Amino acid sequence: MEFVMLNKDEHTDARLGTIRTPHGEVSTPAFMPVGTQAAVKALTPEQVRGLGAEMILGNTYHLHLRPGHRAIADLGGLHRFMNWPGPILTDSGGFQIYSLGALRRIEEEGATFQSHIDGSRHFLGPESAVEIQESLGSDIMMCLDECIAYPAARHDAKIALDRTARWALRCKNSRGGDRQALFGIIQGGVYPDLRRQAVDQIAAIGFDGYAIGGLSVGEPKELLLENLAVTAPLLPEDRPRYLMGVGTPEDLVEGVYHGIDMFDCVMPTRCARNGLLFTNGEKVVIKNARYREDGSPLDSTCDCYTCQNYSRAYLRHLYVAGEILAMVLNTIHNLRYYLRLMERIREAIRRDRFGDFRDGFLRERGAGGDVSSRCADQ
Amino acid sequence: MEFVMLNKDEHTDARLGTIRTPHGEVSTPAFMPVGTQAAVKALTPEQVRGLGAEMILGNTYHLHLRPGHRAIADLGGLHRFMNWPGPILTDSGGFQIYSLGALRRIEEEGATFQSHIDGSRHFLGPESAVEIQESLGSDIMMCLDECIAYPAARHDAKIALDRTARWALRCKNSRGGDRQALFGIIQGGVYPDLRRQAVDQIAAIGFDGYAIGGLSVGEPKELLLENLAVTAPLLPEDRPRYLMGVGTPEDLVEGVYHGIDMFDCVMPTRCARNGLLFTNGEKVVIKNARYREDGSPLDSTCDCYTCQNYSRAYLRHLYVAGEILAMVLNTIHNLRYYLRLMERIREAIRRDRFGDFRDGFLRERGAGGDVSSRCADQ
Repeated sequence: MEFVMLNKDEHTDARLGTIRTPHGEVSTPAFMPVGTQAAVKALTPEQVRGLGAEMILGNTYHLHLRPGHRAIADLGGLHRFMNWPGPILTDSGGFQIYSLGALRRIEEEGATFQSHIDGSRHFLGPESAVEIQESLGSDIMMCLDECIAYPAARHDAKIALDRTARWALRCKNSRGGDRQALFGIIQGGVYPDLRRQAVDQIAAIGFDGYAIGGLSVGEPKELLLENLAVTAPLLPEDRPRYLMGVGTPEDLVEGVYHGIDMFDCVMPTRCARNGLLFTNGEKVVIKNARYREDGSPLDSTCDCYTCQNYSRAYLRHLYVAGEILAMVLNTIHNLRYYLRLMERIREAIRRDRFGDFRDGFLRERGAGGDVSSRCADQ
Repeated sequence: MEFVMLNKDEHTDARLGTIRTPHGEVSTPAFMPVGTQAAVKALTPEQVRGLGAEMILGNTYHLHLRPGHRAIADLGGLHRFMNWPGPILTDSGGFQIYSLGALRRIEEEGATFQSHIDGSRHFLGPESAVEIQESLGSDIMMCLDECIAYPAARHDAKIALDRTARWALRCKNSRGGDRQALFGIIQGGVYPDLRRQAVDQIAAIGFDGYAIGGLSVGEPKELLLENLAVTAPLLPEDRPRYLMGVGTPEDLVEGVYHGIDMFDCVMPTRCARNGLLFTNGEKVVIKNARYREDGSPLDSTCDCYTCQNYSRAYLRHLYVAGEILAMVLNTIHNLRYYLRLMERIREAIRRDRFGDFRDGFLRERGAGGDVSSRCADQ
């Protein structure tokens, strides 16, 4: 993997770059649609690519449990299995063990947990997390990390970040080669000084890229932004920086402002399936009766297939009628909204105007609605 | 609407033709995918068209209840509402009142029934059935008919067919113009002599096309085939003949054999969503564990997107994992199976070889499996 920085915004920490992987290039800052179970929910790979996505994310925890990483390896690897020829990043499973694994027990050796599917017992350690990701054949692998809940005592956050650093070293030592990149993960909860310690530890080991984990786990927005602002600038400048599992469109803009290059989040796809749609103007909860006879497109400024061909009335009808096509069309729109936002961000950085872009965007979004807080609840 | 017969098979009653409508031509014999609620379930119109479909079906009963035919008319009609620029046939609602409407009461004036959605009371008569379909703007409208259950006493079948004939005349008299074609429907249960009476009554009124209704409502396959064989040849030769709601691939071949030009059925799309897939060889119930590591395509003889790009193992994984994409990929395959069958049927008629085609097809299918009986149960 190679990371080339093309421009650094004159007035902010925003960076424009390119990540070169064995399966193609990715323009950064990039948003990666989430393909948890070897599919970006509701869409074909061609549809995802057509929306402007260059890299997608696959989930180690889910694919390990079903259909199993060895089955995927036998079938030619994850790219071939899911018919996605472009770059894939796989997470390590650490976050899902924290959020989904029942009765988990974290020890120095690794994590023992019960499957959320059938309750079967599994073990995931740093070495097996790498082994699974090598079987899947992703372009970018993530180190196994220990996620902690919010709120967590400083003492517990410290224990987790130290263990995450020891696990990171074991991950690096267990790789079978360097065709697949490996990223280290910065933990440290909402304690800025612990975040600094984590950066020192992980950067000292040395990775192909660095991710900020353990944010967007329930903490107030101010703490997310504070810890992002403290951590991002400390990360090695010549490597991609990835803010994991974040977030709203505003969060993406803030992340870029602080120098983040990569994002992933289920928000656009999950909100879409719940009928909550991102637009440049008002917030659209598509089931509302006010859209029943609304012949206008969802977002008249949007160039997506959905906005070019369908009315709000039709989208409302499909959603209320429980049609699968509602999920498809809504997902197309929300993903395009995110990916188009990234295009606008990259263009702003190219022109050294990202600060202005950010000001305008936050002002505009402040005036419009924000569907994000409702999405997670549904 | 215009119907041009291009060839009549030398050895059977099979016919090759073209139906010209205000929204384009349809090659017959044709299979029409069902778009009950203004969407062919799980697919975009472009996907449906790409599979070879030329005309689709919309359901008057469903669209009348939700979102309402006046709303669709105000939004520019059904074609524009659902982004399907090609021909559309709408049924009259008679079958759904029979199969879905709770507490229905059929009187000479029309049918009073409760919505399957919210229990609200509605009235549908011959005139309002036409009015609704004119609002929708379909290319082919169907007369309101009275469907009866199987088994039904001869006396009841006779009452229903006589009423269907009186309603058919009222439908014809209430049309506002002839831009939209209107088809009459032949009822008569499983009584061949009643079927003959019905043809006489309906043909005497005179319609743009003729449909056989009231079959595939639970009667044994032998009775379906017997009544089809009796009825189809009696229908006016110079008009399209439509066998409503039928059926399995074998049924389609048998229908064509007896001179049917048009078919619709939920079987390919519904089976797809239940993971039951039509192939030229074995029957495929995709959730079966035997496909877990099967890297071969669903049907190596199929040219569809699904078979060209995915393995059985992947399709099984998506289905078991509950991914929406399973519905999409399965529907693409099953619809393509049906539409490709129609292409092969048309080619056989063109070459005056339909008899041979039928023999070979029924032999092959007899040897292979038949998913159809399982589909309806799930």
